[in-house]
Amino acid sequence: MTESWPEVSPPDPDAADAARARQHRLAKPAGALGRLEELSIWLAGCQGNCPPRQFARARIVVFAADHGVATARVSAYPPEVTGQMVATIGAGGAAINALARIADAGVRVVDVAVDTEPGAEAPHRIRRSSGNIAVEDALTAEQTAAAVAVGRAIADEEVDAGADLLIAGDMGIGNTTAATVLVAALTKNEPVVVVGRGSGIDDAGWARKTAAVRDALFRARRAEPVDLLRIAGGADLAAMAGFLGQAAVRRTPVLLDGLVVTAAALVAARLVPGAPQWWRAGHRSPEPAHDLALKSLGLEPILDLGMRLGEGTGAAVALPVLRAAVETLATMATFDSAHISAPAP
Amino acid sequence: MTESWPEVSPPDPDAADAARARQHRLAKPAGALGRLEELSIWLAGCQGNCPPRQFARARIVVFAADHGVATARVSAYPPEVTGQMVATIGAGGAAINALARIADAGVRVVDVAVDTEPGAEAPHRIRRSSGNIAVEDALTAEQTAAAVAVGRAIADEEVDAGADLLIAGDMGIGNTTAATVLVAALTKNEPVVVVGRGSGIDDAGWARKTAAVRDALFRARRAEPVDLLRIAGGADLAAMAGFLGQAAVRRTPVLLDGLVVTAAALVAARLVPGAPQWWRAGHRSPEPAHDLALKSLGLEPILDLGMRLGEGTGAAVALPVLRAAVETLATMATFDSAHISAPAP
Repeated sequence: MTESWPEVSPPDPDAADAARARQHRLAKPAGALGRLEELSIWLAGCQGNCPPRQFARARIVVFAADHGVATARVSAYPPEVTGQMVATIGAGGAAINALARIADAGVRVVDVAVDTEPGAEAPHRIRRSSGNIAVEDALTAEQTAAAVAVGRAIADEEVDAGADLLIAGDMGIGNTTAATVLVAALTKNEPVVVVGRGSGIDDAGWARKTAAVRDALFRARRAEPVDLLRIAGGADLAAMAGFLGQAAVRRTPVLLDGLVVTAAALVAARLVPGAPQWWRAGHRSPEPAHDLALKSLGLEPILDLGMRLGEGTGAAVALPVLRAAVETLATMATFDSAHISAPAP
Repeated sequence: MTESWPEVSPPDPDAADAARARQHRLAKPAGALGRLEELSIWLAGCQGNCPPRQFARARIVVFAADHGVATARVSAYPPEVTGQMVATIGAGGAAINALARIADAGVRVVDVAVDTEPGAEAPHRIRRSSGNIAVEDALTAEQTAAAVAVGRAIADEEVDAGADLLIAGDMGIGNTTAATVLVAALTKNEPVVVVGRGSGIDDAGWARKTAAVRDALFRARRAEPVDLLRIAGGADLAAMAGFLGQAAVRRTPVLLDGLVVTAAALVAARLVPGAPQWWRAGHRSPEPAHDLALKSLGLEPILDLGMRLGEGTGAAVALPVLRAAVETLATMATFDSAHISAPAP
């Protein structure tokens, strides 16, 4: 991919400083809100405004794609589940729909490479499925560039429509296999260290998945980040990388989800220096590669609830914590305004 | 206290079993929602209904009291802050007000022993402040019984008014000192192991607090649970213990908050066998005694965000996670209803 990225500027340090100072004036002991304080300061910086505003349009974009490697039986589910789940999300019956309702966020599914007959509902589709990364490249260079561009365009669309908080989600049988290869390659870890149970495979499935990761990792050795997306990723991972990078370009805060999204974030962090300043990690999943990716990005997850579903679900459950951070900084009384005595000297 | 408690029955095992089975039919890999699944099963049991209903009336009751031990300078704040913060909560300007808004919960403050001129707004007040537990009992036996009864009456009032989820919160300068004594006594730990920084005391303050805890603990040795409330607790801790026990009697789920509420829960667990089945821990605070109390109750906190504010704030931030648990179990499509293929054999 030869697309160039504009420089990413950091969140506004003056607004962050003002938020930090305001946290000290709020009617509570300094630091007593713990992680909420750090998040509120970050969000004030992202918005360039202190106090920050409550999110008016939080958006979850689920990137759906099939993966050729699924034929190697690396998942507990057959590949047709991807298309079935895309339809379920569209109908409002998936976990992400329920969780978005609680978090007051909108949900959009983008089919970038689902392996069904193409239809009018897939205007962003790059191709059907991907090459089996154990034996061949996932995408061509052109497809990779097109997928990254789709992700960027969708971030632009969402921000132009008023999105003030973005979440990327994933849906695709086999996608944790590809994501695991990306994390292993970028954090220099061996397959046995990084491979997890994904959707819940048994020991034999884990052995097949580990073999596929090993073979793809061998093919991907010494690849540049964008080539990793082509060799061992897929259209979903490429589109997510574009989406996450472009969110940063557009100065819009992002809550990362689980392994698949965070693997894309790890690539995007190489493509778009400075982008991670616009991201926070929603949760930690039990996938070993997820934790390694978070550590590599220097991100401490907000939640650790043993969730491993994808779709953006972990980030959606964390979104009310971001809302809580904004609400406390924006609406609490100060020591002065409430006439509260200062700490004893 | 000679008041007797009716027997506490456990959450409905049939509804919990139905919820467990339904989790396996939902359109997601089994177990993929992690902790949300356990919480949803518990809530189905509490409601005696599968799927559970979304909370219609979640209520946060903040028990406010002053503590005589505050004169020993065990807090970073002067005692008059208790009354000022009660007014701030009443005016909607405290952290708990902001967080209750995000969690869609109501807030009520109950003054059981604030050290201000009594007024019409304190119909539940037992006394002004409490005895300095380093040198004397916090309450008389009659005051202790009256405070427990107030907590029980308030739980009854709330449940009778339709509350379907209860949170207790605390407000009172010096209250972590009393709470720490209760936890030390009931978990058999030494003062230096249990004493934390409370509202943010310095090293000299920590030494004063540890000395006060040591002296109160000496006075409270070998006391029965209800005598602990009298000797080393306070009207707030006694009222909370009554509230938490009565919530269980009334089959209403409770989300515990930080150290002070969890110390009261530890006492209530002794007074009302079976009550902890109706409780979950909202969060873990950095107070060492909080973690010890949670372990003693066998409760794993939902959140761990470094919060140490009290008021019910940690539980309030966790409440949307409970809502997420209910919403997924109640509204997600099943494999059958969405025509999704089962896992490969």
